[in-house]
Amino acid sequence: MEMPRLNFYYLSPHLLDLLPAKNGEEPTIQFLLEVVDILTNYVKKTFDRSTKVLDFHHPHQLLEGMEGFNLELSDQPESLEQILVDCRDTLKYGVRTGHPRFFNQLSSGLDIIGLAGEWLTSTANTNMFTYEIAPVFVLMEQLTLKKMREMIGWPSGEGDGLFSPGGAISNMYSVMIARYKYFPEVKTKGMSAAPRLVLFTSEHSHYSIKKAGAALGFGTENVILLSTDERGRVIPADLEAKIIDAKQKGYVPLFVNATAGSTVYGAFDPINEIADICEKYNLWLHVDGAWGGGLLMSRKHRHKLSGIERANSVTWNPHKMMGVPLQCSAILVREKGILAGCNSMCAGYLFQPDKQYDVTYDTGDKAIQCGRHVDIFKFWLMWKAKGTIGFEQHIDKCLDLSQYLYNKIKNREGYEMVFDGVPQHTNVCFWYIPPSLRGMPHGDERREKLHRVAPKIKAMMMESGTTMVGYQPQGNKVNFFRMVVSNPAATQSDIDFLIDEIERLGHDL
Amino acid sequence: MEMPRLNFYYLSPHLLDLLPAKNGEEPTIQFLLEVVDILTNYVKKTFDRSTKVLDFHHPHQLLEGMEGFNLELSDQPESLEQILVDCRDTLKYGVRTGHPRFFNQLSSGLDIIGLAGEWLTSTANTNMFTYEIAPVFVLMEQLTLKKMREMIGWPSGEGDGLFSPGGAISNMYSVMIARYKYFPEVKTKGMSAAPRLVLFTSEHSHYSIKKAGAALGFGTENVILLSTDERGRVIPADLEAKIIDAKQKGYVPLFVNATAGSTVYGAFDPINEIADICEKYNLWLHVDGAWGGGLLMSRKHRHKLSGIERANSVTWNPHKMMGVPLQCSAILVREKGILAGCNSMCAGYLFQPDKQYDVTYDTGDKAIQCGRHVDIFKFWLMWKAKGTIGFEQHIDKCLDLSQYLYNKIKNREGYEMVFDGVPQHTNVCFWYIPPSLRGMPHGDERREKLHRVAPKIKAMMMESGTTMVGYQPQGNKVNFFRMVVSNPAATQSDIDFLIDEIERLGHDL
Repeated sequence: MEMPRLNFYYLSPHLLDLLPAKNGEEPTIQFLLEVVDILTNYVKKTFDRSTKVLDFHHPHQLLEGMEGFNLELSDQPESLEQILVDCRDTLKYGVRTGHPRFFNQLSSGLDIIGLAGEWLTSTANTNMFTYEIAPVFVLMEQLTLKKMREMIGWPSGEGDGLFSPGGAISNMYSVMIARYKYFPEVKTKGMSAAPRLVLFTSEHSHYSIKKAGAALGFGTENVILLSTDERGRVIPADLEAKIIDAKQKGYVPLFVNATAGSTVYGAFDPINEIADICEKYNLWLHVDGAWGGGLLMSRKHRHKLSGIERANSVTWNPHKMMGVPLQCSAILVREKGILAGCNSMCAGYLFQPDKQYDVTYDTGDKAIQCGRHVDIFKFWLMWKAKGTIGFEQHIDKCLDLSQYLYNKIKNREGYEMVFDGVPQHTNVCFWYIPPSLRGMPHGDERREKLHRVAPKIKAMMMESGTTMVGYQPQGNKVNFFRMVVSNPAATQSDIDFLIDEIERLGHDL
Repeated sequence: MEMPRLNFYYLSPHLLDLLPAKNGEEPTIQFLLEVVDILTNYVKKTFDRSTKVLDFHHPHQLLEGMEGFNLELSDQPESLEQILVDCRDTLKYGVRTGHPRFFNQLSSGLDIIGLAGEWLTSTANTNMFTYEIAPVFVLMEQLTLKKMREMIGWPSGEGDGLFSPGGAISNMYSVMIARYKYFPEVKTKGMSAAPRLVLFTSEHSHYSIKKAGAALGFGTENVILLSTDERGRVIPADLEAKIIDAKQKGYVPLFVNATAGSTVYGAFDPINEIADICEKYNLWLHVDGAWGGGLLMSRKHRHKLSGIERANSVTWNPHKMMGVPLQCSAILVREKGILAGCNSMCAGYLFQPDKQYDVTYDTGDKAIQCGRHVDIFKFWLMWKAKGTIGFEQHIDKCLDLSQYLYNKIKNREGYEMVFDGVPQHTNVCFWYIPPSLRGMPHGDERREKLHRVAPKIKAMMMESGTTMVGYQPQGNKVNFFRMVVSNPAATQSDIDFLIDEIERLGHDL
């Protein structure tokens, strides 16, 4: 590393005028307000349908440097003016995930209260490990988790939980605590202290269960995939058959994941029937409600998670269906104390027992993390501002919109649904069939051609920047579009726009 | 869950006037600016030494509700006016981690550029899994990681890496990839496909290595603690002896963690000597530089990490010594491709191979997470604004300050150093001996009394709200203060203040 000595650039007044500099208050506020001006302009434009969703560039284009926007870092500082330009350009070349026509991900939208909450969180810049340095946030987390457990239906909202850095980590927690519950000696002795353990999850479930199996030392071969019906829901008889099969092979079934809202189809596994089997064979039941958990907020739709109160643990990501800014994921556990039992290491430097306050509020040792970002405040603030009924209205509206889309295309020329019937969640999965393929007999040639349609339309969509929607293959089904609605800004006209756009871009393929 | 029907509260104009409401621009900007006003006032006061570091309340006091501040969530929405009050109160009852006299944690300070970066990140509200939805951030991450690898000293900055949700997770990654390197079949077959593997780390190292051992299925008993010298540095001969011992027992040594900047003493393990042993026995060498990695930015201090270029992986948390807002932690890996090999599951719905751009930029499958928070932007922006030399100056200044503290107290009446000699990092560990204990002969009674001194002073400090510094026991050493400096706002006068305050509060104990 070669670096020149301190030189005059660094002495340019701007950066050094900011706090903690003497008399730094005024330049600091001025700088922050200039940033806020950039951000509020971005917010305004994000909601403006005449703005593009994105201004697409290839990686090499951005790496070569757009005019005035150079990603390279250097030894010397830039001026604050350039920093403001960099902020503007970063937003300019990014993707407006809050745009009413951004449908690409399960997380979309830009909630203003949540945004304010994140700005405050960054300003407070603290850490969840102890009450000592995050008193308010630690209590908010406890109260919010209790509310969520009440909604799950655990008696009096009792139990435990944590906010974690995302659904994959929350799901990983569920596997860890299941293992700890049945084989606590694995914590000290490792997996060799347990028999060959197997986990069960749907072939439609999120890949994080498999990732957890790999990471935690089970091995992906011991993550057994369950067959589903044509709607992507686990077939309970298949679960039971595979449990029996595993036992016959001498393996020990440990854990079943039921998905409440699968990633692609939005399918809800039949929790009650799965819970019956888990009880019969004494297995841990986890419900991955990362995507579908939000429906618990809706009196109209919560029946889709019926039986969730029988789960031992639940993943629920408010950053998906509930529109909370990223990241906000909770792992909720019915049994108190087991998270701490599984994870605590009692580090003296953080968790001193001889503090002046009630140290049961020092919850950090329950986590696999040490430092833990404050993910609770934005969610708490949104809940305050909307009330439970505000979330309910948001969810009901999104489900109505997806039903509108379903009704619009189910019999429309040029569309085929990937599965029949009204979607359970906001996922609407469909193929667009360009006119050139409409008369073609079903067979390999048509399959191959159809497989290339969605990627081509998507690429054109991104290049024109008008809207974004996801696609993927699933099992033996070739690439199809997966539409999801979680954005509170979306309306029927945006759904119409999406369909028009697919047809405009795909018509001549 | 019982909820009343939609009622007039929700129809109060305020919340529903915000975007995405029609004509919502003006009320939205107005609301956000009111929030920013609260935040900028908080920022100003944070740097003002006449402001308290905290306004301490016990958990039950906050739970019972302070005037106008009620943490409970309800079905009905609150007014936006109340939301603003809630924001103010959340800050009021929190801890000012950016205050020049907050020394409680390895992460402290409030960097204005970093703060602006976080505000922008929340506004962009996207996710790191694909280039598709985070083009600029994905490239910034790659360029920044390359810069960091260059500073480590890996040829041409080659290698791999990711930003993860904290040092504990980064350390967990290192253990996972070491296992994958030597026993790749564990990914599919689980730990039963490997012999009994052992990990080595210092008794002074961070507890996350043990947590990783527990989580990943090694078992904490297979995390072997290494003895240290009186300064908390691993004794290489002890490592070699323990490797030989493990092999004699039939275990398979896999992984050695060398700490670069231990949590309590700030000790730097002798990396070169440890690397020699790792090479001799063919073990993975990880350097946990979560706390000390920042010193690589300083030409004066980087020699303390000499040998780090021989590591297979490195944890480095810019959110600690470099003053980047939380969270910002990197796991850096010398061998390319191994992160993906270890973690990828190739989920079709996210990582489509048939996109129009170069999909090697879709880095999400390398992570154990699916969604991943954008932690890079604030760091990138700070690097742009300060240049490498700006970080260097910050680090040199903090180390100078801690040497100032060391010089001030090493021979001062009423102080005993926990270890002799100039600290390697900014950690200064010391006992304050109140006058009542100064004449007392060394022995159990004095030990017990001294053990209670730091907690008592700390409690009084928090109640008076004037400053905060950490304490803990370590091994057979009773509670002592651990002073750390990472806050760019701290000056010699703040160090003087801390000492005065300890003496004021502890004099009559």
